[in-house]
Amino acid sequence: MSKKVWGGRFEEEMDALVDQFNASLSFDQRLYPHDIRGSMAHCRMLAKKGILKDEEAAKILNGLQEIKREIDRGEFSWDDSQEDIHSLIEAALVDRVGEVGEKLHIGRSRNDQVSLDVRLFLRDCIKNVIQRTEDLQRTLIVLAEKNFDVVLPGYTHLQRAQPVLLAHHLLAYFEMLGRDKGRLQECGRRVNILPLGSAALAGPSFDLDRHMVARELEFDAISANSMDAVSDRDFVLEFLFISSVLMMHLSRLSEELVLWSTQEFGFITLPDAFCTGSSIMPQKKNPDIPELVRGKTGRVYGHLVSVLTMMKGLPLAYNKDMQEDKEALFDTVDTVESCLIVLNRLLTGVCFNREKMKQAVERGYLVATDLADYLVTKGMTFRKAHETVGKMVLYAIDHQKELNALSDAEMKRFSEIIEEDVRGWLEPLNCIQRRRVPGATGSVPDGLCPG
Amino acid sequence: MSKKVWGGRFEEEMDALVDQFNASLSFDQRLYPHDIRGSMAHCRMLAKKGILKDEEAAKILNGLQEIKREIDRGEFSWDDSQEDIHSLIEAALVDRVGEVGEKLHIGRSRNDQVSLDVRLFLRDCIKNVIQRTEDLQRTLIVLAEKNFDVVLPGYTHLQRAQPVLLAHHLLAYFEMLGRDKGRLQECGRRVNILPLGSAALAGPSFDLDRHMVARELEFDAISANSMDAVSDRDFVLEFLFISSVLMMHLSRLSEELVLWSTQEFGFITLPDAFCTGSSIMPQKKNPDIPELVRGKTGRVYGHLVSVLTMMKGLPLAYNKDMQEDKEALFDTVDTVESCLIVLNRLLTGVCFNREKMKQAVERGYLVATDLADYLVTKGMTFRKAHETVGKMVLYAIDHQKELNALSDAEMKRFSEIIEEDVRGWLEPLNCIQRRRVPGATGSVPDGLCPG
Amino acid sequence: MSKKVWGGRFEEEMDALVDQFNASLSFDQRLYPHDIRGSMAHCRMLAKKGILKDEEAAKILNGLQEIKREIDRGEFSWDDSQEDIHSLIEAALVDRVGEVGEKLHIGRSRNDQVSLDVRLFLRDCIKNVIQRTEDLQRTLIVLAEKNFDVVLPGYTHLQRAQPVLLAHHLLAYFEMLGRDKGRLQECGRRVNILPLGSAALAGPSFDLDRHMVARELEFDAISANSMDAVSDRDFVLEFLFISSVLMMHLSRLSEELVLWSTQEFGFITLPDAFCTGSSIMPQKKNPDIPELVRGKTGRVYGHLVSVLTMMKGLPLAYNKDMQEDKEALFDTVDTVESCLIVLNRLLTGVCFNREKMKQAVERGYLVATDLADYLVTKGMTFRKAHETVGKMVLYAIDHQKELNALSDAEMKRFSEIIEEDVRGWLEPLNCIQRRRVPGATGSVPDGLCPG
Amino acid sequence: MSKKVWGGRFEEEMDALVDQFNASLSFDQRLYPHDIRGSMAHCRMLAKKGILKDEEAAKILNGLQEIKREIDRGEFSWDDSQEDIHSLIEAALVDRVGEVGEKLHIGRSRNDQVSLDVRLFLRDCIKNVIQRTEDLQRTLIVLAEKNFDVVLPGYTHLQRAQPVLLAHHLLAYFEMLGRDKGRLQECGRRVNILPLGSAALAGPSFDLDRHMVARELEFDAISANSMDAVSDRDFVLEFLFISSVLMMHLSRLSEELVLWSTQEFGFITLPDAFCTGSSIMPQKKNPDIPELVRGKTGRVYGHLVSVLTMMKGLPLAYNKDMQEDKEALFDTVDTVESCLIVLNRLLTGVCFNREKMKQAVERGYLVATDLADYLVTKGMTFRKAHETVGKMVLYAIDHQKELNALSDAEMKRFSEIIEEDVRGWLEPLNCIQRRRVPGATGSVPDGLCPG
Repeated sequence: MSKKVWGGRFEEEMDALVDQFNASLSFDQRLYPHDIRGSMAHCRMLAKKGILKDEEAAKILNGLQEIKREIDRGEFSWDDSQEDIHSLIEAALVDRVGEVGEKLHIGRSRNDQVSLDVRLFLRDCIKNVIQRTEDLQRTLIVLAEKNFDVVLPGYTHLQRAQPVLLAHHLLAYFEMLGRDKGRLQECGRRVNILPLGSAALAGPSFDLDRHMVARELEFDAISANSMDAVSDRDFVLEFLFISSVLMMHLSRLSEELVLWSTQEFGFITLPDAFCTGSSIMPQKKNPDIPELVRGKTGRVYGHLVSVLTMMKGLPLAYNKDMQEDKEALFDTVDTVESCLIVLNRLLTGVCFNREKMKQAVERGYLVATDLADYLVTKGMTFRKAHETVGKMVLYAIDHQKELNALSDAEMKRFSEIIEEDVRGWLEPLNCIQRRRVPGATGSVPDGLCPG
Repeated sequence: MSKKVWGGRFEEEMDALVDQFNASLSFDQRLYPHDIRGSMAHCRMLAKKGILKDEEAAKILNGLQEIKREIDRGEFSWDDSQEDIHSLIEAALVDRVGEVGEKLHIGRSRNDQVSLDVRLFLRDCIKNVIQRTEDLQRTLIVLAEKNFDVVLPGYTHLQRAQPVLLAHHLLAYFEMLGRDKGRLQECGRRVNILPLGSAALAGPSFDLDRHMVARELEFDAISANSMDAVSDRDFVLEFLFISSVLMMHLSRLSEELVLWSTQEFGFITLPDAFCTGSSIMPQKKNPDIPELVRGKTGRVYGHLVSVLTMMKGLPLAYNKDMQEDKEALFDTVDTVESCLIVLNRLLTGVCFNREKMKQAVERGYLVATDLADYLVTKGMTFRKAHETVGKMVLYAIDHQKELNALSDAEMKRFSEIIEEDVRGWLEPLNCIQRRRVPGATGSVPDGLCPG
Repeated sequence: MSKKVWGGRFEEEMDALVDQFNASLSFDQRLYPHDIRGSMAHCRMLAKKGILKDEEAAKILNGLQEIKREIDRGEFSWDDSQEDIHSLIEAALVDRVGEVGEKLHIGRSRNDQVSLDVRLFLRDCIKNVIQRTEDLQRTLIVLAEKNFDVVLPGYTHLQRAQPVLLAHHLLAYFEMLGRDKGRLQECGRRVNILPLGSAALAGPSFDLDRHMVARELEFDAISANSMDAVSDRDFVLEFLFISSVLMMHLSRLSEELVLWSTQEFGFITLPDAFCTGSSIMPQKKNPDIPELVRGKTGRVYGHLVSVLTMMKGLPLAYNKDMQEDKEALFDTVDTVESCLIVLNRLLTGVCFNREKMKQAVERGYLVATDLADYLVTKGMTFRKAHETVGKMVLYAIDHQKELNALSDAEMKRFSEIIEEDVRGWLEPLNCIQRRRVPGATGSVPDGLCPG
Repeated sequence: MSKKVWGGRFEEEMDALVDQFNASLSFDQRLYPHDIRGSMAHCRMLAKKGILKDEEAAKILNGLQEIKREIDRGEFSWDDSQEDIHSLIEAALVDRVGEVGEKLHIGRSRNDQVSLDVRLFLRDCIKNVIQRTEDLQRTLIVLAEKNFDVVLPGYTHLQRAQPVLLAHHLLAYFEMLGRDKGRLQECGRRVNILPLGSAALAGPSFDLDRHMVARELEFDAISANSMDAVSDRDFVLEFLFISSVLMMHLSRLSEELVLWSTQEFGFITLPDAFCTGSSIMPQKKNPDIPELVRGKTGRVYGHLVSVLTMMKGLPLAYNKDMQEDKEALFDTVDTVESCLIVLNRLLTGVCFNREKMKQAVERGYLVATDLADYLVTKGMTFRKAHETVGKMVLYAIDHQKELNALSDAEMKRFSEIIEEDVRGWLEPLNCIQRRRVPGATGSVPDGLCPG
């Protein structure tokens, strides 16, 4: 077992099992570049303020850079007995530069250090997730443009409702992702606040220049209360929530991909390269990717619940429970990124079966609303028109016809005001084109590039 | 059972049990002012666009106002057989103004109508919750000012760590609430988008003026995609999440109120008027309010999980599952508001026992960090100083003394560089005043009005 | 505001707002029959032990019975200012029988009283839920029997996999419900333990006969530790979890009902009386019931999370947070019961379109596994057979035929060992009948009455 | 990329990224002993039924044993390109024994195979967790016996309530763990059902002997419906729930360990070997272990939510989403086991400060209930006695005395019936010993070995 950074007051060595239970190195090691970057900024500031001599600072900076280089290249020999990445790097530093390395921790605690590291890490992740989200948005636009004349049934309650453009349907997801992006950006601003300089909880007794550190690390602001700063995990929760909603959106898209690739719907064909088969049923070609994305939604929800539960009722300031935030955060980042990437690539390869979609639009009385609207334009009240068309639908079902296929006489039987022009009125494409109000399905072609 | 707004196509009457299972009137009735306000705006726009004649619109507007007045005054006779508040108000309107009332629903569906109502409702709630949050922030500042010279132990791991100002401790919550407020404001902007004009899912076939409705209802923008607009519940989720974090913050404050009012801590006395006793133990005075607030945290978390689960994997566009968002939202609004109000009033009456806090600061070696810092200012590396003081603490525990009570000789035994000036250095108030870096406990008095 | 049962030690009156925040009467009033039943048993025991005189007990019992009768009949005048149902009934008792009523609470606390009441309540609920579950199981069997010769595609990944009997499919839900029932019964045994006699937390100082009370209230056992007994909510959690899994099962069934009633699947027609329409689209007939059941799954999950969160980290023994268990429990009971009832009635009216199902079985290469098995019976290894059939499927897709429609020559091209008898082998009904291993789809008709 | 077990029907190679996204080998490899054990049983049965020749079976069995041995010894060379542990072992088998290895999968699918593996795995885990739970129960009994005469305040609402025995307090946790154990055993019975023989979803077309396999693998029963069997994850959920409640219990114990080791309570001293210090504050000795256990409660709750969410609304039968159950399960098993072990070892080393506890019992009017009971034994009604003592407590607080310290005259002022004997009556130990009803704190010494 390695020497602890806090050993002086203890008479017994730590129990080996406890040591392992307690340690976070196995997962927080991925914070190393952020930890080193933060330490370098702290070191420079200590020198600037005369707390470290310039030559001391130079040695420390060199040592840190060397450690960074070694880890980057996979040449670093990890000391698994260290408690966490912070202790590990400090120990490696002292190894390399001697006693002067022990001066680095002046005015700092692991409490503010870990918050700094996670904020630096998360800041990068948010940028990546935003980019991945935009990639997916772009793909949706490309697909919408390529298929701008494809019509399919719009559904409510999974029942055919009204004809819509495929482009309109796809761009609904564009909107959802846009909101996700907006939330990520706002979260990013709350992440981008420097906690360093809060020390353990009360602030440091040294005259540190927090603004200098903030500038060097490109933070927008410094935290305003040290007790809050070391025990605040709002930014982790916020990212987990935004990710949960993002995954929820992807789960809806995935559900539709699964539905649309069934034999029954047949609206799309998934590329072989994105499907798997069965070890027993030779004909199977399964939409594993959207299923997994849908399933992983639960995973991200779970992480959100985990950290919400963990934070509930904790007194100020730092408590060890908070160490549990990291694995939830890391796994969420990895899950969301990979889901966005994989789904994006899958979508690019999807083949839309426009003929199947067209056939679907023609069955199921999707133009009933337009028939009612027709009656309204001829002067009937909306409620009466609705009822009249309801009866026509019932009649049509009984006679196994679509509305369009009713004869003039049959139509007149329900209302005298129905005339010749109803035929054109009920053409699905006309139904779509009449819906030109901003946001409606007929408004899409004009506004295809919402970004 | 009442006549449905969609009955035409149906041959059987709805099963009574199903009717009840399906109906939302028992809880969505609280949306009535929002429903009526939205309908009036819709009506005016229909008239402006010539879809309704002016006299038709006038009748409808009068009818709606009358209904509103009756409900406000408790004089409205509720028809419990109606499915929801939208159907109820339409039926009441037709009752009053006759067939013309049936024209109001032109170009509109309950799908966009319910989204409109909930957005109007939530917009108001967010304003209220922000105000309640600011009230609590104000109380914290008042308490901080009134007690600006009170010192208590700052804790980490619930172990005494370093002396801090009570004001600093209280203002940590000010910061948390500030973040909550920021999130509420951002959520408010995403709520404030007009969904009306999306109709069932594809948009209306009538030439509506959505911008006019948006202006009248004071919305910042109109929704960009009708399929998204009728099936988007992000804004509900976002409010539930923000409320969850807000409750988490209150649960931490509550935990501290519970702890501080124990016999063991004794830092505060709660006002009798905010406590309850026991039906069996005559001496009991229980901190029920903070306990309940802490417990209600779970309730709000639960609502968040509920709606996240509900939305998972739903295909476009509207599905009936989404009706389940409302009770979760309403209960969250009520819970958060009442917790903020009650906690605020409780805090106002709390008596801080400064003597007890002072005694607590004097026991538990809270100045050990400052002693290490002292050694660092005399030239020792931080790690060595830390270890030296660790040994001194161990010695002090063995001899049942505090660090301040060690004699010069005892101190020197651990390090020759300790001198006379260490005594003043270790005074708790000095420890605090040395921490003047922005955000540290010693920086508080200067910046008491953070708002 | 009413007089509290604990007022003696308090100098100030309770704040009105706090009173309301704190009170549980608005929801715990539904516990009244259980509260009165428990009080009567307690009273009889006190008399038996000589702690109450017989005539005192008689007065109290009469008073309690009278109160019960009044509430049952809706004649009771509720005093809304009471804190909870326990205080309310005690106050009503003293009103009726005078000071002797104040003796009822000897050796008892609200802490053990509320646990008793909830256990009595939940015991009944569990019985009801079990019965509702059995009702649904029975309906599944009746449907299976009525449709014993209906074949439909079995799906994995929502892709057609192999032909199965509709009966087999339905009975999968029978199994799930059977496990739910098993869990409910086991939970019922843990509920059925008497907590009364634990008093506030340490037990009563009077010589009570807990076993007598247990016998009278038909409990299986008495709780073994008073501190545990007053702070145990495991039984609530367990019921919430079992309900969550039950709802999950119902959500799967509901999902299938929604899918099957789409135009695309068309496997079932839902009865009009269980569907709703659209306020705007006259043709719509929506499967609201299964959608709502699916959506309410989130609601029950949410309650589980709520109570789990609430209980986390509470020190012994009773804490006020625990009051939050009741609304979650009550709403879960109501939700689960109504979902079971409504779904059961809906299922009874479902019309299965066997022709549509048959057609679906004939498209999609569902017999591919059987073709591979055929090759295995002729001596090929399974992996080779699987690959061979995979290639045949590919060929068949390219030529837009089903496997059965390949000519002998075409078949031989893939394997010489395919012979004449393959035709019969691939008949869907034969595929099913070959699966006679217990639990397989072909084993169903023999074992239709699994109960 | 390795050859898939389902490749025949596919024209394109799987996308590398998808391959990785899709693969479960990185986590399901820990199922290898269970996978091999299941395969061996399946193989023997195939031979018994004449589906495999004896020499074929022998080769396969040898091959499987060899693979097992290699993995056990760390000598196995893992083919990371394999999709999952099932494919990997089949491929390794064919590598070793040739084409005959391809016959092993006859009558089996990965759908029933993975359910089998997880059930075998979980069966072992449940046994381990039960044992760990019993270990902790035993420790509680040992501690109760060692400290059988230690008295401490019993708390409700974290306010001192009544004196209790430390043994009684500790044994409350014994009861909770006992319920956990009961639930684990019942879950174990539902786990112990053989799913193999369900094949993909419809059952195998070969004449397998499922009962033989069940006997060999020591299962109590075989699953009754193949479609249910391959898509049932109830047993995973049940284990996650039971673990959640178990963790909730541990979180309560942990909370008390944290509280009791504060300077303020001072009831216990934690062993150095189980605590950590601070990198900045030399005096700190933090109760990291109980804090971590408390924090990890959220982690297990999260996994439960994750799998509940994942299962919601999935149609029959197997869907790929279900692959997400494994990491949640594995991490829960590891978390629960390590928490039980570590907490058990920590408890063994805890030092109880009986003097501190005794002092705490003497302050805070803990005997007020007994004083009220005293008045009741002298004939006062309970409510009056409660109120009288409430007033005495108020008086005592004002005069800064405990109840015992009131003079005879002072006492008489509140009630004439108070006499000399009240002094002994109010001795804490007498208060405890009067509580002899089964389950009460005074009943403990007699029943110390509840097991």
